Amino acid sequence: MSEKIRIESEQALQVGIAALTKAGVPDAGARMQMDLLLEAELRGRASHGLLRLPRVIERIRNGVANPVTEGTSRWRGDALLQVDGQQGLGPVVAWAALEKISVRAKTTGLAAAAISNNNHLGMLALYAERVAREGQVLIALTTSEALVHPWGGREAMIGTNPVAVGVPATPDPFVLDMATSLISMGQVHDYANRGQALQPGWALDAKGDPTIDAGAAKDGAIAPFGGAKGYALGLAFEILVGALTASALGRDVTGTLDSTKLCNKGDVFIVIEPESDAMTQSVTDYLNMLRSSVPAVAERPVVVPGDRALLQRDASLKGGVLIAPEVWQRIRDLADPAGNELGSSLLH
Amino acid sequence: MSEKIRIESEQALQVGIAALTKAGVPDAGARMQMDLLLEAELRGRASHGLLRLPRVIERIRNGVANPVTEGTSRWRGDALLQVDGQQGLGPVVAWAALEKISVRAKTTGLAAAAISNNNHLGMLALYAERVAREGQVLIALTTSEALVHPWGGREAMIGTNPVAVGVPATPDPFVLDMATSLISMGQVHDYANRGQALQPGWALDAKGDPTIDAGAAKDGAIAPFGGAKGYALGLAFEILVGALTASALGRDVTGTLDSTKLCNKGDVFIVIEPESDAMTQSVTDYLNMLRSSVPAVAERPVVVPGDRALLQRDASLKGGVLIAPEVWQRIRDLADPAGNELGSSLLH
Repeated sequence: MSEKIRIESEQALQVGIAALTKAGVPDAGARMQMDLLLEAELRGRASHGLLRLPRVIERIRNGVANPVTEGTSRWRGDALLQVDGQQGLGPVVAWAALEKISVRAKTTGLAAAAISNNNHLGMLALYAERVAREGQVLIALTTSEALVHPWGGREAMIGTNPVAVGVPATPDPFVLDMATSLISMGQVHDYANRGQALQPGWALDAKGDPTIDAGAAKDGAIAPFGGAKGYALGLAFEILVGALTASALGRDVTGTLDSTKLCNKGDVFIVIEPESDAMTQSVTDYLNMLRSSVPAVAERPVVVPGDRALLQRDASLKGGVLIAPEVWQRIRDLADPAGNELGSSLLH
Repeated sequence: MSEKIRIESEQALQVGIAALTKAGVPDAGARMQMDLLLEAELRGRASHGLLRLPRVIERIRNGVANPVTEGTSRWRGDALLQVDGQQGLGPVVAWAALEKISVRAKTTGLAAAAISNNNHLGMLALYAERVAREGQVLIALTTSEALVHPWGGREAMIGTNPVAVGVPATPDPFVLDMATSLISMGQVHDYANRGQALQPGWALDAKGDPTIDAGAAKDGAIAPFGGAKGYALGLAFEILVGALTASALGRDVTGTLDSTKLCNKGDVFIVIEPESDAMTQSVTDYLNMLRSSVPAVAERPVVVPGDRALLQRDASLKGGVLIAPEVWQRIRDLADPAGNELGSSLLH
């Protein structure tokens, strides 16, 4: 892969929106989808960034993503919204659901959305951050295709099942966003591309034997984070989301990594009202106490989750985002009709 | 410590109830408290077992636990119950709250309890198991005194903050119950008593330096599980519970390990209705697929969280529970007026 190039974020946004619009996404939806991809890019999370845009568009072309719907929903109870995403774009369906449950939680105290038939949500951190900036707590869960092996097992049977938690604090909310896998399959591919060895314990090969060969790990499984506990947690999220959304489980999950299959994983959002606004200050004070506590290594201060991402975002807004030139070329081709032919050939 | 003795579980239950009754706990509350302790003992979780009964009684005697209240509550919204535990016994306050939100969730779809001023809940697994047996999903969180150091830090600033998740399955529900610390402070004390060295990475000493000396670790801090991710998760639970319950945070938390201070941590329960009863079968099928998947080591099948605990429970119900003779003697003394003097002297 060639060296990355620096693109001004507003330019990336406009080109991405143009590409989505060409694929039939209405302007508002195109902005929501690009917002998720660009905000990931701004925070240095390239795996959830512009790299994913061509697949979003391929999925629309292949009829497994619907560019115009925000899904349908009904209240299964006063506080529980059941959403059929109808194969809409992940962020479009997600924001529509979040809007409804955030309003509802103001009277019910908490409200949740159980979403099925929705495409990839993108970086969960953004949902957590925005809900928390508005003064509410968010817990977000989503599942994925089976990539993680059970602790003591040999086969990929569990999704990477990330969790996000947003809690109001000042000046910025606390935002946790982490997969329950030790590494991502994207990292495995990066290591393979660079011909670099994995760390022992990170992955298994196709036979289920431990491997440090990234190429072999691509057809195998990645480890849960934190050993038996991380396995237990990722599994708990898989079936919790399954039970609430009636989504597919384990190896039956499709459509989060490919361009041709319907996406049948589930998403769960829970929005909760804090006890009082006063708690925002208590949480802030506590987080600041952590940041200023004595570090193990003098020059490496204790970090609170989300801090680094926001620093990176500030830097990217000033200096632009770093994008692989092939990715940028693809997106420009998708945005510019004259380049459609090249764009398509690169997509397959 | 002397070799453990085997006690028939019904006898342990009756003696424990008698001890609590003598301390002023009404019969129903005494059963609830003993139920939690005994069920932990039956499942081989001695750290949450009868060992804790003398402290429960000491806390009542010292006026920091109220033997008769189940707390007061009000609906902060239709789906969010705010509970002031009024220093009641942990399980008594918890079951009263769970009863209310389980009923409410049947109409609202989900409901939560945010509990403050409550004593130690005991083993969270039991709550998750019972709610899930009745067909609902439970997420349970509770905080504790600061024992865990931040990743890259030197001081204990975060609770061991366990999480439990219960999901309906047959014949037994899925039950996750785990602390977000790598080990428990109880294990550190066990290692110290046996003069055994800790594993590297498990703990820090009072100065914040890594140590394998269990004695030194008692005054230090234990590690989060799963490195930076486990730290982030435990911290997210600390402030999420804090924000919802207005409980104390970090080093301000007291009363979960001592016998003299008011307990100011928080507890959060979220009860959710599954999408349909059909999902119970899907979850069961998936869990069975995991259990029968190829294990890393032929003679060690893949285990689903909660399985071992229920096997151990069956064995304990037949063969009795293993209790340290000193603990058993203390509890008998607390139950038997004639032994009160000995009981008291052992308590201090």
